[in-house]
Amino acid sequence: MSNNGIDPFDLTRAQFQLPDGLVYLDGNSLGALPKATADRLANTISQEWGRMAIGGWNRAGWMHQPRAVGDRIASLIGAPDGTVVMGDTLSIKVYQALAAGLSLSKDRPVVLSDSGNFPTDLYMAEGLLKTLGGDHRLKIVDPEVIIDALDETVAVLMLTHVDYRTGRMHDMAGLTKAAHSKGVRVIWDLAHSAGAVPVDLALCGAEFAVGCTYKSLNGGPGAPAFLYCRADLADHVDPALSGWLGHAAPFAFDLEYRPGDGIDRFRVGTPPVLQMAALEPALDFFESVTMNQIRARSIELSEAFREGVEASCPMLKLASPRDPHARGSQLSFAFEHGYAVMQALIVEGVVGDFRAPNLIRFGFAPLYNSLADIDVAVDTLARIMESGSWDQPQYHQRAAVT
Amino acid sequence: MSNNGIDPFDLTRAQFQLPDGLVYLDGNSLGALPKATADRLANTISQEWGRMAIGGWNRAGWMHQPRAVGDRIASLIGAPDGTVVMGDTLSIKVYQALAAGLSLSKDRPVVLSDSGNFPTDLYMAEGLLKTLGGDHRLKIVDPEVIIDALDETVAVLMLTHVDYRTGRMHDMAGLTKAAHSKGVRVIWDLAHSAGAVPVDLALCGAEFAVGCTYKSLNGGPGAPAFLYCRADLADHVDPALSGWLGHAAPFAFDLEYRPGDGIDRFRVGTPPVLQMAALEPALDFFESVTMNQIRARSIELSEAFREGVEASCPMLKLASPRDPHARGSQLSFAFEHGYAVMQALIVEGVVGDFRAPNLIRFGFAPLYNSLADIDVAVDTLARIMESGSWDQPQYHQRAAVT
Repeated sequence: MSNNGIDPFDLTRAQFQLPDGLVYLDGNSLGALPKATADRLANTISQEWGRMAIGGWNRAGWMHQPRAVGDRIASLIGAPDGTVVMGDTLSIKVYQALAAGLSLSKDRPVVLSDSGNFPTDLYMAEGLLKTLGGDHRLKIVDPEVIIDALDETVAVLMLTHVDYRTGRMHDMAGLTKAAHSKGVRVIWDLAHSAGAVPVDLALCGAEFAVGCTYKSLNGGPGAPAFLYCRADLADHVDPALSGWLGHAAPFAFDLEYRPGDGIDRFRVGTPPVLQMAALEPALDFFESVTMNQIRARSIELSEAFREGVEASCPMLKLASPRDPHARGSQLSFAFEHGYAVMQALIVEGVVGDFRAPNLIRFGFAPLYNSLADIDVAVDTLARIMESGSWDQPQYHQRAAVT
Repeated sequence: MSNNGIDPFDLTRAQFQLPDGLVYLDGNSLGALPKATADRLANTISQEWGRMAIGGWNRAGWMHQPRAVGDRIASLIGAPDGTVVMGDTLSIKVYQALAAGLSLSKDRPVVLSDSGNFPTDLYMAEGLLKTLGGDHRLKIVDPEVIIDALDETVAVLMLTHVDYRTGRMHDMAGLTKAAHSKGVRVIWDLAHSAGAVPVDLALCGAEFAVGCTYKSLNGGPGAPAFLYCRADLADHVDPALSGWLGHAAPFAFDLEYRPGDGIDRFRVGTPPVLQMAALEPALDFFESVTMNQIRARSIELSEAFREGVEASCPMLKLASPRDPHARGSQLSFAFEHGYAVMQALIVEGVVGDFRAPNLIRFGFAPLYNSLADIDVAVDTLARIMESGSWDQPQYHQRAAVT
């Protein structure tokens, strides 16, 4: 509650467009739609593209957008202004950060990651290391033994802060410190962190961070990714994806690449102006509530859900850390027929998602999820589990996207 | 004229939103806004994202969009269904095509290009070749001597079909044939070709093509790029940007990358759903007119402009091929103070652009440019040149984006 007795989250919740009666606990996959987004995008289309056409690059500030929006993201992840740039997808940003990290430690051949990392991070690393050739290799260890695997062969430690399956949250400061003590550079993937949990990049001192904006930041399907590079390093890395908008003088049209100053060299091609315009109103929410407020409410929501489910659904086994401070803003439960249970839940108006092989996963978005949502979700899940109503043929049919 | 006496381009022109009185000859940089775009995007936002949320990936077909839209592009560039995929930016697609081409000829170290190529293509090649290391190198020759430079050291010939500065159009079939006779793979950048001139990829047999959709295809600022890979090759290339949506089973979340079938392996991260939705209505225009009709009208427009300017502006020197069949849908003129002339023109309501060091550039978009536009543009340019009104201090001040 704020000082005047109004819950700030009642105000934010009213500014999202969600179907009546739907309990949406999948904002950790795709955030809900802010009511302001459609108008904002209509304005960009008709008032900027429609009236200014090519002039929009200067007059509407499109060219500067990747930096301007980057500064807004920076404020949510403990990064100074001028250290974050937007564009492309998270996969591309992983590739860029990893190539940059490797360019700082050319004598070390190993990229270290853990089996809790999101697969695309590992796939992009595989592709980069194959392209680099030589002794370069990817080493994947269990999350518990990362520190033991840090040695003088490791160039870069690349981890996702919050595990997409279980919500288990790494100790960002501790692991970064351990890596630095062995001369290892660190990349944090904040896909499930940005807008979900407080992050302090400046404090932890990591070299790079990347993330997406379509989950807890509510930027919409296909929203752009972000890349953070520590300010003292940006001028010293070799960009692997050396596109013209990362050039020191894009409109000089030189035949040779010269990297731009600082974070600008992580720009690649033409920025996704419309996706960026859709992201902007979504970031306004973070001006009315702090990340600490969001975290406190997130814990309240997830604890209520965990307690409710554990009390009423004995067949579901908690797959997330029991300590709310050891997990992000999500909870998962293991059950052999998890896929069917989730389909039944969705039909009943409670949306979470399924992650192979057997996890049902629920995300908690304080900006639009209330305690009343949690009650409905627990009751519905309990009813489905108790009645066995999930065990119908149509709930076992897998869709293309799970 | 069509059979019933109605000019099909009068119909298309009425479906674009352009400021009253503006003559927009910069569609080769950013295409004009189709009137249908705003509603289409509003629908995607409120009816798909707003109502389906995460369900949009399956129910609204978002996951399939990069292939479905790719098929629509394929039909405009002479490519079969299933050979084109959308996503990312043109710079990224250049990187992917080049890495794929090099993976097919591992014993050849050279990428050959010409000095008329758009700089980002050369920059991305530089970055990739540096990452690959070894003997890999980029060789840049003049456009006239490409064939002489083709030899057994060259793995890939990478060219932009229509020169962004002059509009000079390469002989796609002839150069591809010459390259193939030396065992060289070919990548065509169609940035200034797709939607502007007829292209027949199947006929010319090139291995790869890439392009953007915000120029003559009118997809809007930040519209996604496309990549074509010849059907018989797609299963044999090693993707350098091995992202999860190019994986054979993205939702199995394996720790190791296995490339998807065919063109799917060129997908990388989450597709830009909103940018893709904005592109869709722009592609509808190409169902009412053929690329041959567009080409015929484009030549009519550019010839009228060339004749008018050459007759009335003796100080402007034609920098494009005089033969309309040897150029794309654009014309450039050289003049020492070209920048100031273009600024004066823009203030007078005729929009082209400037390309360093001294070119004023005009694009012709039959979908919305009329012969009446050409008359206004010629008269305005002649008046500015004759009066010397371009020589004012404010017209010499360079903007960030030219």
